[in-house]
Amino acid sequence: MSYLLFLDYAGVAVFAATGALAASRKRLDIVGFIFLAAITGIGGGTLRDVLLGKLPVFWIEQPAYIGVCVLLAVLVYFTAHLVEYRYRLLLWLDAVGMSAYCVMGTIIGLEAGVSAYAAIVMGISTATFGGIFRDVISGEKSVLLSDEIYITAALLGAASFALLVSLGLAQSLAVGVAVMLAFGLRAAALLFAWTTPRYKPREGRDID
Amino acid sequence: MSYLLFLDYAGVAVFAATGALAASRKRLDIVGFIFLAAITGIGGGTLRDVLLGKLPVFWIEQPAYIGVCVLLAVLVYFTAHLVEYRYRLLLWLDAVGMSAYCVMGTIIGLEAGVSAYAAIVMGISTATFGGIFRDVISGEKSVLLSDEIYITAALLGAASFALLVSLGLAQSLAVGVAVMLAFGLRAAALLFAWTTPRYKPREGRDID
Amino acid sequence: MSYLLFLDYAGVAVFAATGALAASRKRLDIVGFIFLAAITGIGGGTLRDVLLGKLPVFWIEQPAYIGVCVLLAVLVYFTAHLVEYRYRLLLWLDAVGMSAYCVMGTIIGLEAGVSAYAAIVMGISTATFGGIFRDVISGEKSVLLSDEIYITAALLGAASFALLVSLGLAQSLAVGVAVMLAFGLRAAALLFAWTTPRYKPREGRDID
Repeated sequence: MSYLLFLDYAGVAVFAATGALAASRKRLDIVGFIFLAAITGIGGGTLRDVLLGKLPVFWIEQPAYIGVCVLLAVLVYFTAHLVEYRYRLLLWLDAVGMSAYCVMGTIIGLEAGVSAYAAIVMGISTATFGGIFRDVISGEKSVLLSDEIYITAALLGAASFALLVSLGLAQSLAVGVAVMLAFGLRAAALLFAWTTPRYKPREGRDID
Repeated sequence: MSYLLFLDYAGVAVFAATGALAASRKRLDIVGFIFLAAITGIGGGTLRDVLLGKLPVFWIEQPAYIGVCVLLAVLVYFTAHLVEYRYRLLLWLDAVGMSAYCVMGTIIGLEAGVSAYAAIVMGISTATFGGIFRDVISGEKSVLLSDEIYITAALLGAASFALLVSLGLAQSLAVGVAVMLAFGLRAAALLFAWTTPRYKPREGRDID
Repeated sequence: MSYLLFLDYAGVAVFAATGALAASRKRLDIVGFIFLAAITGIGGGTLRDVLLGKLPVFWIEQPAYIGVCVLLAVLVYFTAHLVEYRYRLLLWLDAVGMSAYCVMGTIIGLEAGVSAYAAIVMGISTATFGGIFRDVISGEKSVLLSDEIYITAALLGAASFALLVSLGLAQSLAVGVAVMLAFGLRAAALLFAWTTPRYKPREGRDID
C-alpha cells in the first residue's frame, strides 16, 4: 500500500503548497499561510469523507496530514520570493495535486463500498474542492472557471481508473495510468492552452 | 408517494438548469456545465443530509439525481443561445426550485424525526444553499442578496407546510398549498418587484 | 457547567450580531438579517460537529441557539442606525466571538475524545468559519485576510487552553486565561494595529 500512501501525501503536499502560494499573493502572515495551506491540502478529502459519512474525518486521527500542510506552508513562506512566477507555479502544483487526488478519491470511494459511479464523483470532488475552497476564501477567480481544461482532466483520471480496475487491471498499474492520463491532459492544457469547446452565445445561433 | 418523487426531481432539474445557465454566462465547457449544474441541483439537499447525519448523502446510492443534472446541463448547453434573457430565466427556474425544495426539505426533516422548528430550518437550507453554492463558486452576487423577496418565500413555504400538516391536513394537499404560497410570493416579487422593508441607515434615524 | 453555557451562548450571540451587522451593510430585509445572523452564529460550531461526526448538529435539537440568532438579528435591525461605525463594531464583536469559540471548540473536541492536536484544530475551525461563511456569502473581503492578527489569536486561545488543562489547571481557570489571551491579542491587534510579520515578496530577496 506504500505507493498509495505516497500518492496521498503527495496530493496533500502539493495542494498545501498551492494554498501557501495563494497566501503569499495575499501577503498573509505565517499562520495565514498554514491556515490556507491546510484548507487547500485537506479540503477536498474532508468533503469526500463527510459525503461518504466516514466521520470523524481522516485528519482528526492522523495528525501527519496537517503536519505536512504546516511544513509546506513554512517552506513556501521562506522560499516563495525565489520563484519568478508564483501563479504559474501554483497552477502546475495544482495540476499534480488534482491528478493524485482524482484517483485517490476514487479508490477511497470504492473501498467505502459505493458504486463505480459514486466513486468517480468522489474522485472529482476530492480533486476539485480543495482548490475551490482556496480560491473562494482567498477571494480569487476560481481555477475551475479558467479557460483551460480542468474538471475534464479530473473526470478522465477518475473514470479511467474505475474502468481499468473493473477490467481487472492490477490496482498499482491502474493508478499509474490514470494519474498520468489526468496529469497529461491538464499539462497539455497548460502548455498548449488546450481548451474544450466552450459555450459561445452568438456562434450557436448560426448553427441551430 | 409519486407526487413527492416528482417534486423532488423537479427541484433537482430546475436548480440544475440554473447552474447550467450560470455556466453559460461564464462560458464554461460542457463538463463545467455539468459540474455547476450538479452542485446547484443537489447542493441544498446534500447540506441538509449532512446536517441531519443522513450519510452517505442521498445521491451516492441513487445515481438518477446526478443523471438528471447531466441531462439538464447538456440540454442547456445546446439550447441556451435560444433564450433571450438568460439571467431572467435563471431567476424564474430558481423560483420553481426554491418552492419545491423548501417543502421537500421540510418533509425530509420531519421524516427524520426532528422537531417542526428544525424541519423548517432544513426546508430553508435545502431551498437556499444550492443557489448559494452556485453563486459563490461562479463568483456572482448571490440571488439571496437581491432586492426582491427570496428567503422570506422559502420561510413561508416551509412554515406553512409544517403548520398545515400539524393541523391535520392531508400531506398531498399541504404540499400543494405550501409550494403555491412559496412560488406565488417569489413570483410576485419578480413580477411586481415586491420587496420587504429593507434596512436603511439614514431613514431609521428620523424614527427612533 | 453554567459558565460554559454562558460562554457558548455569548459566542453565538456576538457572532450572530456581526452577521446582522453585515446584513445591515448590505441593506437586507429582516429575514435576510436572521439568515446571515444564524449562519454566522452557528456556522463554525456546525462545521466542527460535522467534522467530528456529532450528527445531527447541535442546534437541531436545541432551538435556543437559533432563537438567540433571531433575537440578535431583530435587535440589530432596529438599533444598527444608532451605531456610528458599524464595521468597527462588527470587528469588536467578532473578536469577542472568536475568543469564546476558540476555547469552546477546543473543549468540545476534547470531550469528543480526540487528541489535543485535533481539539485545537476544532477550536480554530469553530472560531473562524462562522466569520468566513458570513464574509463569503455577503461578498465581503474576509476578516481573516485583514492585516491585523486574527487566526494567530484563535490559535493562541485554543493552544493555551489545551496546554493549561493538560498541566492540570482547573477547567474554569483555564477557560478564563485562554479566553483572555485570545481576546487580549486580538484587541491589541485592533487597538494598536499589531501585525505579525507578513510575507513581502521584494524585501525577502534582499535577505536570502
